[in-house]
Amino acid sequence: MVRMGVIGYGYWGPGIVRNFHAAAGCEVALICDRNPDTLRRAKKDYPGINVTTDPCEILSSTAIDAVAVVTPVWTHFELAKGALANGKHVFVEKPFTSTAAQAEELNDLADRKHRHIMVDHTFLFTGAVKKIRDLVDTGALGNLYYYDSTRVNLGLFHHDVNVIWDLAPHDLSIVDHVTREKPEVVIATGQRHLNGCEDMAFITVYFSGKMIAHVNVNWLSPVKVRTTLIGGEKKMLVWNDLEADEKIKLYDKGVEISNGHGIHDLLVSYRSGDMWAPKVDQKEALAAEAEYFVDCISRDRRPFNDAHAGLRIVRILEAADKSLKERGKPVSL
Amino acid sequence: MVRMGVIGYGYWGPGIVRNFHAAAGCEVALICDRNPDTLRRAKKDYPGINVTTDPCEILSSTAIDAVAVVTPVWTHFELAKGALANGKHVFVEKPFTSTAAQAEELNDLADRKHRHIMVDHTFLFTGAVKKIRDLVDTGALGNLYYYDSTRVNLGLFHHDVNVIWDLAPHDLSIVDHVTREKPEVVIATGQRHLNGCEDMAFITVYFSGKMIAHVNVNWLSPVKVRTTLIGGEKKMLVWNDLEADEKIKLYDKGVEISNGHGIHDLLVSYRSGDMWAPKVDQKEALAAEAEYFVDCISRDRRPFNDAHAGLRIVRILEAADKSLKERGKPVSL
Amino acid sequence: MVRMGVIGYGYWGPGIVRNFHAAAGCEVALICDRNPDTLRRAKKDYPGINVTTDPCEILSSTAIDAVAVVTPVWTHFELAKGALANGKHVFVEKPFTSTAAQAEELNDLADRKHRHIMVDHTFLFTGAVKKIRDLVDTGALGNLYYYDSTRVNLGLFHHDVNVIWDLAPHDLSIVDHVTREKPEVVIATGQRHLNGCEDMAFITVYFSGKMIAHVNVNWLSPVKVRTTLIGGEKKMLVWNDLEADEKIKLYDKGVEISNGHGIHDLLVSYRSGDMWAPKVDQKEALAAEAEYFVDCISRDRRPFNDAHAGLRIVRILEAADKSLKERGKPVSL
Amino acid sequence: MVRMGVIGYGYWGPGIVRNFHAAAGCEVALICDRNPDTLRRAKKDYPGINVTTDPCEILSSTAIDAVAVVTPVWTHFELAKGALANGKHVFVEKPFTSTAAQAEELNDLADRKHRHIMVDHTFLFTGAVKKIRDLVDTGALGNLYYYDSTRVNLGLFHHDVNVIWDLAPHDLSIVDHVTREKPEVVIATGQRHLNGCEDMAFITVYFSGKMIAHVNVNWLSPVKVRTTLIGGEKKMLVWNDLEADEKIKLYDKGVEISNGHGIHDLLVSYRSGDMWAPKVDQKEALAAEAEYFVDCISRDRRPFNDAHAGLRIVRILEAADKSLKERGKPVSL
Repeated sequence: MVRMGVIGYGYWGPGIVRNFHAAAGCEVALICDRNPDTLRRAKKDYPGINVTTDPCEILSSTAIDAVAVVTPVWTHFELAKGALANGKHVFVEKPFTSTAAQAEELNDLADRKHRHIMVDHTFLFTGAVKKIRDLVDTGALGNLYYYDSTRVNLGLFHHDVNVIWDLAPHDLSIVDHVTREKPEVVIATGQRHLNGCEDMAFITVYFSGKMIAHVNVNWLSPVKVRTTLIGGEKKMLVWNDLEADEKIKLYDKGVEISNGHGIHDLLVSYRSGDMWAPKVDQKEALAAEAEYFVDCISRDRRPFNDAHAGLRIVRILEAADKSLKERGKPVSL
Repeated sequence: MVRMGVIGYGYWGPGIVRNFHAAAGCEVALICDRNPDTLRRAKKDYPGINVTTDPCEILSSTAIDAVAVVTPVWTHFELAKGALANGKHVFVEKPFTSTAAQAEELNDLADRKHRHIMVDHTFLFTGAVKKIRDLVDTGALGNLYYYDSTRVNLGLFHHDVNVIWDLAPHDLSIVDHVTREKPEVVIATGQRHLNGCEDMAFITVYFSGKMIAHVNVNWLSPVKVRTTLIGGEKKMLVWNDLEADEKIKLYDKGVEISNGHGIHDLLVSYRSGDMWAPKVDQKEALAAEAEYFVDCISRDRRPFNDAHAGLRIVRILEAADKSLKERGKPVSL
Repeated sequence: MVRMGVIGYGYWGPGIVRNFHAAAGCEVALICDRNPDTLRRAKKDYPGINVTTDPCEILSSTAIDAVAVVTPVWTHFELAKGALANGKHVFVEKPFTSTAAQAEELNDLADRKHRHIMVDHTFLFTGAVKKIRDLVDTGALGNLYYYDSTRVNLGLFHHDVNVIWDLAPHDLSIVDHVTREKPEVVIATGQRHLNGCEDMAFITVYFSGKMIAHVNVNWLSPVKVRTTLIGGEKKMLVWNDLEADEKIKLYDKGVEISNGHGIHDLLVSYRSGDMWAPKVDQKEALAAEAEYFVDCISRDRRPFNDAHAGLRIVRILEAADKSLKERGKPVSL
Repeated sequence: MVRMGVIGYGYWGPGIVRNFHAAAGCEVALICDRNPDTLRRAKKDYPGINVTTDPCEILSSTAIDAVAVVTPVWTHFELAKGALANGKHVFVEKPFTSTAAQAEELNDLADRKHRHIMVDHTFLFTGAVKKIRDLVDTGALGNLYYYDSTRVNLGLFHHDVNVIWDLAPHDLSIVDHVTREKPEVVIATGQRHLNGCEDMAFITVYFSGKMIAHVNVNWLSPVKVRTTLIGGEKKMLVWNDLEADEKIKLYDKGVEISNGHGIHDLLVSYRSGDMWAPKVDQKEALAAEAEYFVDCISRDRRPFNDAHAGLRIVRILEAADKSLKERGKPVSL
């Protein structure tokens, strides 16, 4: 039985608690939040779980095996460090940390303490992303040309991080997981229209080879869009995460270019065949992720979404942020 | 009566001929194309119009008042120059020229010859763009935050220009026309996956003030998308050009941020009201543009889509191309 | 404080309990279900609420003021009758009863006992239906031409009632509520493809005047559709209940026909203007309905969705069922 | 070479002329229209084709082999009869005739004269319908449960026929062609809201076996809908004719019901798998149909869309009209 303490019961915390509460082999022992009103809500939702306003109670409790850190980004490092130092496994909300240096330090500490870190890249546990990775791995798409995602909506504004740190971790972790390509250069442009942080940004990542990723994130869109195009040499797909069914559509489309005689004699031919929408597993991603965490802890296995994975994403986020601050200056990784 | 010569009867030429042929006060006197098969097609379509394979026949004919140049970009300059030198008005397919220097030279020449140049920024004559400009001009949107366009589809590949020169003139001319903001910095990223030119690109243009434009153009998309989001302080709109009706949807949505006490006390409020899809004029844009050209020539008036307009767009295209070649290095205008 | 007993915790029961549990001035005192497994689920969901497998415990309890009947249709009459006989108010799942005679008897009994009956026509409490009624009442649509609804999906198959009794009460109660027109003749066609009950049906209701309603219900559709067209003399609307936002779109469209000289000289003119999607209240309908029930009981006011409303719908259902059994024979009301 | 005369150059006529003009082995020799303005338009479109206001010129000309009748329904019989009597083949716009008796008489006359009649059921030549027929014929759908079509839009109002005669021939001919089932009973309901003819109607056709067809036609809809659901034992499909691509979506969905013990023990299981959108031939239907007509005439072969096919549809239309006039009274065929 894995005994969990959960720090943070704000926007994402209730989902975390609900799913770890429901996961077999797991028990949520203690919930912490600084806000007494929020704690009252937690108590009403789960009369049987203890609550506290002091995170140290969780970090130091001998009755707790693992800590879920579901707090603002700037607090992740200290809380995760405290948990690891006390010999606990850690489940950290995305983005992993505020800096790559912090991510590296946590990774080292976990290794020394023989504890596991899992970074909550929830999308990797959706049926859609699992299917996409499958299509890439089996070669159905062929060599990848690009990953182009639009992730826009109205709000929710954050005060402590800009739109890149809020929304881009989703796409960056998906690209990392699905393609396993090495990023080389990051360019980010964007703008801050209201007080505070950038509310829209456009990120390009050049990978080794010809793969290119583009991520459009925006808190100021009148409509919600969650659409990703993935182009491959053999097939192309559109993933619309807002579709109830048919989230993924795979197109038997492509272009072939062959050389004729001379520069203007390139021969272009288009291929346009059937479209196919494979059935996608509908299981709640967070439920699958919670079960996987419990399983990794129970069997002492390193999760694939570990501190290394978290670090890879934070490095791109750092680079993107730096590029954004200099109006799109390319930043090498 | 304006007597037109049309050079080029390939992809776009038939539409040009059809609309000038139908425009009141205008007559298409001569069609030129290097390809005899293409010319035969023209002759079959319009038994009453003369044809030739020699553009000089058009450039030097005394029976022709104005020349439409509907040929590959790299030929625009020489053909337009020849027409102007012979005292003819010129209608030039977009993009205006291959370089800003060429555009400036043509502009000077036209001024010296007292002749008019019109650059075929067709979208400016659509009901949708006219409505958007109207909404901006009347202040319905408030200060503009951003213009974000996605213009992707499969093909048609060009061999002489990349996807930026092919597709981006549409969006850049629309932004220029609708916002009349001054561009300051251009960043373009993208990739070339097949032989030849870049087949996908992402362009950001920073304008003076907080306006930012982003254009996503791609010849390798499995689906056709023509969607533009425009965010304003007061209202936001979505323009989906593939919708038969309801091309423009105006959202009474927005965000207000006011300062509370301290950095984390920013108060954010969202406004979400009705959506409104104004009726949009359905007249064919090219028909309206042809009539406008004839009108400008007849009354000796300078068109708003003149050489200056063409030049403004070519300058951004040049900068984008330069940025693209250096993997996103920002280029100031 | 209204003390509720809820009979039935199957498909719809949990929603009923959750909303009455959350409603101010109301307390769910006892939950009944014949199925012990189901009851265990109820107990787990609500540790503080008592449960029983015996409905008589609820019907006869002096600690209960009102009974929610959330059981199969054929049990509604006996359970509601028992509740009323014991002096309790009754909230009955739709459709109200299996026959019009039963509905009339319950209505009489409630009147004699000075108790209230509310029939759970949930849709009448949605923001969409409230907005539609508003548009009709204020004359925005003008005289109504038709109400045409498509309500199809795959499953869920019932064994005790056909698709008419399952799905059509929604539309029939909406038409009744929104138009307040008097139905005159009902025609229903349909088919039974698998064992048991009719799985698809098409219902037409002629009202006095020129209003006509058509309802397409189907348990065997590969896609889920919830779309209603409402045509009026002045405006027309489309209600797509599956849209997250923009559920209602109001079209400024219409046709005018005027007499010319002779039968073939009718002059037809079309009007096609803007489209407008009014903001629709997003509050959960069942929450609003539960609060309204508590309010009616507390203030001793007759709800608008009372036994009369339930009876009006059952009469149409009975007629439709009769017509369906005779392959579409018209049945007068 | 088949020499055609075309009578009627109104709404549908220009498409007929354009496609017969383009068809190999065919020549349009003469166009007739009563309206001189319309004839001038024909002359402008086709300077090389003779025109006349007198249909007898076409009917009696020895230089004409076949006559296309593209006039109002009530004139079809006399014109087709005249053409056949003069030994010409006939291509008749849908619906074939105003009555089944007329259709039978024309069929007999054609047989006696050894001439062919083709009824213009254009949809049978679309890529979508050919694909659907293919899916039915190969057993991909299994036994058919239903065909349910919605064909609604604003206008165009006719003065001489109601919405059933205008729009329903499309669906009825498709059902006839695709399923080859025998219709048994027709029920039609609907209403007339403006002067003149019924502007909306709902038709149900019971076939032998369990197949049922339902057709929803409406001239008073604010939106255009062209959607057909076809349910089969093995698979189900949705045909949305307004989609540019992906017109047909085939769903691997279904329901199986097996008997348990007793009436309430039916076991229902749902199957929900992939969706597949086969590529559909994009060739213009009318072009294919014109070529087929020329081919049938040239080889003296009876077309599948012959007078018998036309008669089958007219019989259902007559029955539907009769049912509609009696507010939905079932009419046996």
